[in-house]
Amino acid sequence: MEYGSETLANLVRQFAKLPGIGLKTAQRLALHLLRSSDEDVEKLGSLVLELKHKVGFCGVCGGITEEPTCAICTDPGRSGEIVCVVEQPQDVLVIEKTGRYKGLYHVLHGVLSPIDGVGPQELNIARLEERVRDRGVKEVIVATNPSIEGDTTALYIAKSLESAGCTVTRLARGLPVGGSIEFADDLTLARAIERREKL
Amino acid sequence: MEYGSETLANLVRQFAKLPGIGLKTAQRLALHLLRSSDEDVEKLGSLVLELKHKVGFCGVCGGITEEPTCAICTDPGRSGEIVCVVEQPQDVLVIEKTGRYKGLYHVLHGVLSPIDGVGPQELNIARLEERVRDRGVKEVIVATNPSIEGDTTALYIAKSLESAGCTVTRLARGLPVGGSIEFADDLTLARAIERREKL
Repeated sequence: MEYGSETLANLVRQFAKLPGIGLKTAQRLALHLLRSSDEDVEKLGSLVLELKHKVGFCGVCGGITEEPTCAICTDPGRSGEIVCVVEQPQDVLVIEKTGRYKGLYHVLHGVLSPIDGVGPQELNIARLEERVRDRGVKEVIVATNPSIEGDTTALYIAKSLESAGCTVTRLARGLPVGGSIEFADDLTLARAIERREKL
Repeated sequence: MEYGSETLANLVRQFAKLPGIGLKTAQRLALHLLRSSDEDVEKLGSLVLELKHKVGFCGVCGGITEEPTCAICTDPGRSGEIVCVVEQPQDVLVIEKTGRYKGLYHVLHGVLSPIDGVGPQELNIARLEERVRDRGVKEVIVATNPSIEGDTTALYIAKSLESAGCTVTRLARGLPVGGSIEFADDLTLARAIERREKL
């Protein structure tokens, strides 16, 4: 009875399983709910329960949706000739926010990582090859993270699409806009020099 | 349809209402749940829904309990002659963890704060006077926080118990154990000099 209530103790434990939430924070959240309006608590509880029943992944691109196919894939105003490949569903949100991209997406749900036992079979890659072959995709933009795993995954995808006859590109690397050279890391700076652009 | 799902968007909004959880963190939590096991998500959702129905406050001390009276108030091994007054239910947990206190508690559920419109009526103070008068309490330890509001509340309580014939004490102030004088703030150091103890 560490909290004077088994229900409260269990809720704290459950909150503490979430990423970035320690035991102290979990306790603060649970005690906050105890003082929140019935309506807010009710809403949070039912949304959590509904989540897994209502929300799933798009059968075409793997993005988040409540329908069999997501709103981006079914949008007639978007070009089906370009597909942007991302690691996670949240990456779609970030690219959408730029307002600069009007093609479709393909969500891998991870990156190749042999150490963690993640091979091509564990990712949404086979479906990408199908899409490219069957739907006349002209360009695949690989927007995996600029990390070792992201780069490996990008190379793997480029290789697997070699025979499909589409262009495979990747996001440009270089100095972040608004960043300063003084604080850029060695690798980024080296790349920026190597791939310098003509003015 | 910012998240491709209204349910997910609502859950993110609901998470973001919790203290210390911004929109980015709320999004991370919701997306994490989407990948968590059905069992974990189910547990979290039902515990949140149960919380307000099962968990409440003790009719005697105001602490957290699922019964009309809490486990501490009904424990025959604890002395009813000493009552420790704290601001919040979580303060009880912290004091219990020291293992040094065997009396009862009284939870105010806040501190006097005229700016926020919190007067004595908003706090669990009247019930404290009743307890002291009716149950033969000999000492009241006021363990409000060492802040302006906490100090004001402590003085108010001492005044309101003047005629009740019990001793009113408060927690000692001074240097925190393991702390260093070099980094102590002026106020704490001044108090520690003023209230120096004989060796």
